[in-house]
Amino acid sequence: MGKHQALVDITTGRDAKTLMQVALGKQTADLVLTNARLLNVYSGEIIDDSWVAIKGQWIAATGTGSDGVPSARQVIDTAGRTIIPGFIESHTHLVWYFSLHQFLPHAMWGGTTAIVTETLETYPIMGKEGVVAFLDSMKDQPIKMFATLPAMISISKRTRGVPRQDIGELLQRADVLGMGETYWQALIQDPDAVLPNLEETLLAGKTLEGHSAGARGAKLAAYTACGITSCHESIDADQALERLRMGLYVMIREGSIRRDLKKISELSDRGIDTRRLILVTDGISPADLLEKGYMQYLVQKAIDCGWDPVAAVQMATLNPADYFGLATVMGGIAPGRQADLMVIPDPRTISPQTVISRGRIVVDSQRILGDPRPHAYPEACRQTIRLPQRLRPSDFEVAFNRGARAKVRVMELITDLVTQETHLHLPVIDGLLGVDTQNDILKAAAIERAHESGKRFVGFVKGFGLKRGAVACSAAWDSSDIVVVGADESDMALAVNRIAELNGGCVAAVDGKVAAEVPMPIFGIISTEPVDILARQLKAFNSAASQMGARSSDPMLTLVTLTGAAIPYLRICEEGLVNLKDDKTLTLFVD
Amino acid sequence: MGKHQALVDITTGRDAKTLMQVALGKQTADLVLTNARLLNVYSGEIIDDSWVAIKGQWIAATGTGSDGVPSARQVIDTAGRTIIPGFIESHTHLVWYFSLHQFLPHAMWGGTTAIVTETLETYPIMGKEGVVAFLDSMKDQPIKMFATLPAMISISKRTRGVPRQDIGELLQRADVLGMGETYWQALIQDPDAVLPNLEETLLAGKTLEGHSAGARGAKLAAYTACGITSCHESIDADQALERLRMGLYVMIREGSIRRDLKKISELSDRGIDTRRLILVTDGISPADLLEKGYMQYLVQKAIDCGWDPVAAVQMATLNPADYFGLATVMGGIAPGRQADLMVIPDPRTISPQTVISRGRIVVDSQRILGDPRPHAYPEACRQTIRLPQRLRPSDFEVAFNRGARAKVRVMELITDLVTQETHLHLPVIDGLLGVDTQNDILKAAAIERAHESGKRFVGFVKGFGLKRGAVACSAAWDSSDIVVVGADESDMALAVNRIAELNGGCVAAVDGKVAAEVPMPIFGIISTEPVDILARQLKAFNSAASQMGARSSDPMLTLVTLTGAAIPYLRICEEGLVNLKDDKTLTLFVD
Repeated sequence: MGKHQALVDITTGRDAKTLMQVALGKQTADLVLTNARLLNVYSGEIIDDSWVAIKGQWIAATGTGSDGVPSARQVIDTAGRTIIPGFIESHTHLVWYFSLHQFLPHAMWGGTTAIVTETLETYPIMGKEGVVAFLDSMKDQPIKMFATLPAMISISKRTRGVPRQDIGELLQRADVLGMGETYWQALIQDPDAVLPNLEETLLAGKTLEGHSAGARGAKLAAYTACGITSCHESIDADQALERLRMGLYVMIREGSIRRDLKKISELSDRGIDTRRLILVTDGISPADLLEKGYMQYLVQKAIDCGWDPVAAVQMATLNPADYFGLATVMGGIAPGRQADLMVIPDPRTISPQTVISRGRIVVDSQRILGDPRPHAYPEACRQTIRLPQRLRPSDFEVAFNRGARAKVRVMELITDLVTQETHLHLPVIDGLLGVDTQNDILKAAAIERAHESGKRFVGFVKGFGLKRGAVACSAAWDSSDIVVVGADESDMALAVNRIAELNGGCVAAVDGKVAAEVPMPIFGIISTEPVDILARQLKAFNSAASQMGARSSDPMLTLVTLTGAAIPYLRICEEGLVNLKDDKTLTLFVD
Repeated sequence: MGKHQALVDITTGRDAKTLMQVALGKQTADLVLTNARLLNVYSGEIIDDSWVAIKGQWIAATGTGSDGVPSARQVIDTAGRTIIPGFIESHTHLVWYFSLHQFLPHAMWGGTTAIVTETLETYPIMGKEGVVAFLDSMKDQPIKMFATLPAMISISKRTRGVPRQDIGELLQRADVLGMGETYWQALIQDPDAVLPNLEETLLAGKTLEGHSAGARGAKLAAYTACGITSCHESIDADQALERLRMGLYVMIREGSIRRDLKKISELSDRGIDTRRLILVTDGISPADLLEKGYMQYLVQKAIDCGWDPVAAVQMATLNPADYFGLATVMGGIAPGRQADLMVIPDPRTISPQTVISRGRIVVDSQRILGDPRPHAYPEACRQTIRLPQRLRPSDFEVAFNRGARAKVRVMELITDLVTQETHLHLPVIDGLLGVDTQNDILKAAAIERAHESGKRFVGFVKGFGLKRGAVACSAAWDSSDIVVVGADESDMALAVNRIAELNGGCVAAVDGKVAAEVPMPIFGIISTEPVDILARQLKAFNSAASQMGARSSDPMLTLVTLTGAAIPYLRICEEGLVNLKDDKTLTLFVD
């Protein structure tokens, strides 16, 4: 009932009396940073000659000038450099790519001290236990970790929804801040199915994350009226402004799947109130993480795109803290807040030199001092590819016995991610429909892989580009499927079987051999490798796919989104094809 | 634990599915306002040609242009006038002066649709039951009513503090948003006494209201570090800015006791972030309410003092909604918020013409349409003047048998409200110390009146001004006392006895007769009269006091603050004198 247990739990750790004593000069601080320019997110100022006093995990006092600086065990003279609060990542997908302890150093290195992640990827695989297993990996890390729950909008009826009791139990957890992204079409198409869990979340006093890609006007209003309070799907200034006007927090996305910051930054000189703008990645790839960095890259880019540095920093600190109801303990540098902050050269140069998380120096001169905790996942999380038997090439056959040509529903890629429903007449040879690489018509299949059903559906995709071989992945979005696209049924079977041997991952197979593979043994979704090795593996996979003809700039991403329930229009799952326009499961053949 | 039950309760009343249907044009709205300029507190814009659709208590949709306007049972064409959200009063004292149902029409008339009030005045009188009785009077009113709990910082040891169990029980209530103003000196002087109830409040996930009058630097930091999140005691721009920098919400006070808006408005052209500025009255007198109005006066004055109209409106709408964690349901005009709004001529003219509260038109063309509910207080609340016997003139005698002159601690008024501790040698005649109107030295007494103790303390005040007679009041701040100041012991006794007959109030007595009286029968603090009659009664009381020589511009206020624990320095209660500098109870005579 109305709990904000995260806030209460953090607050409970604050020894107010000790902080008072430090502020009053009656106890020694642990650490004082002096001679700093302080970017004050509350007043919107940059204040010269500032100091910050830390005791334990907390900021005990702040001030200016040399008078009143508490004595401290350790003093850092910032020599006129700038102090800003630690960054908060408000929307990302960490059940994807990296193990948390491999990822975190890279986040910390760039000044991120709190992360809110989605957990939806694990639910179709292992249900509530999968979510709990992932949440357990977030415990006792050097920075604050929070999560949102799976709304489980899925095109597969089996995967769709989460029992209200599961949601109720998970909402009790302090590290759960709310319900994750609820794709808007599902809410509007079937409110009776979707609303109960949203209401359960509101009853728990927690937030409803939105996902209103492309919605506008009446539909956006209808979606917002349900209590949704954010959206990270604005792709331009107009969309961002419409959402802002409707009272939504606009999470400006700049990550590996989309980069919307530059276009939305057209708002930067229009005098718009920025308090409800938040910078998020919505997920970042290993390569981008290594090359660009994490939240510091977003804040720097926001400044470079024309936002005032104070506003840009607020978008990754105070604004998300306010949004999640945690501003009394984080998101700014003031007495009684957790000591999450960093030293940067100047307000326009977001290159953290020292990063402090909960009062502890976790990054100093590029070195990581606070080691993230590796998590020992239960064995069940490592055994999630549960196919009843090995796949054979014939499992990817498509039979038709009503003539020489069949009218078929095809997923036609019109961008790397968006498909349309195209009806094509395909030739039937010996009662079977085959691929047609000349016209770029390939087989695409989804195979349920987590519940020993082995249920599968084989269809067609146009525009993927493979001339030979097959690519497959067990991290197919919004599903518990392995998704595979191929020009050859033998390579399709090989790729899927190899994934089963790896307990999950991506495999490219060509001419009967594995050309590249990325093991992802946790849930069949997460790698255990360090970020640099994982980046190399992914690059090798995508190179192999490209050499096989894949057209996408990121073939793996194109592959895994074929099962997704959020990107229009025609999608595939183990039950068949679904057009998101009306959410009906469709047969392969058009009558 | 960590409840925000107010948010949950309000949210629970929202029928999301119906709102969606209205937004989508599938159901008829109850009311649509069209052709409006909409002041959008989220984006910070004023948007021409806007419309707002209301269903039940809620806003179902908003938009611009004529397309997509939902059909409605009632349409108000605003003819290009401006719509702004209803005002939220974030800090006031409603256990004082008026009965709620007499007060509310005047608040609603000016566009106020939510109020957060202190409740500390009733606790010394009737304890938890008194608070509950007042909270009950807030139920089922035409606008939203919330309260904060008594911190009970008092100079009287008997009145000081609230048992943790009482606080715990009261914190369970949805209408309780947090702990009321905790005077900073008490927290710093005696954290062990004050912190437990603050921690109990934080454990309940609720707010801690501050009161840091005059604090700065280390002391302000120490106070803030405890989790205090607001202060309404800034009296100039520098104080406001220091508090803002420490992460406090600065409640800018413009009421009957102090008017700080003009001076703090020096910040208006300094580019300060305004999101943590909130306009509050901290209490308003009947005369001011009638003459100036309520929150609309504050917002208008903020604009007149140089603030941008959008920022000024935000200070009374979105900013407080964000502060109290209620922004998902109030504080702005957007789908899914309660329909609290008003029509004004233009963004710079805060004269509400139509006021809508929870979807209902409560004010139209100056007429009040939503009648507040009169509350039937339990009889115990009307019988709170419980003196063991009538006072006699001799009860105000001060004996001294150690010489012809006595060195006495005197409360010397250095402003209408601030006193200093002055030590004077007073003559002793027949073993008694008398008043000395020549030198403006009067008797001041505090008599415990709620618990049949009749315990009293008689001291002296300099600078009050009476040449004859006496003034008394049972609404003495932070206490359960009747406070009386007099030039004549018989009139002092008469005034106090008359208050007992009235079951509470203010009485001016002179030459053995009652010159003026203001009955306040509820708790001995609240009148039952309409605001205009109460204003006349108070004016008559103050006129009588002035004619008797009182110097203060508001003699009643000067009188009742003599027992207060927040305004420096020397104060009186039934136990003796207390200097707030060190909070020690002092004897009358200086050894």
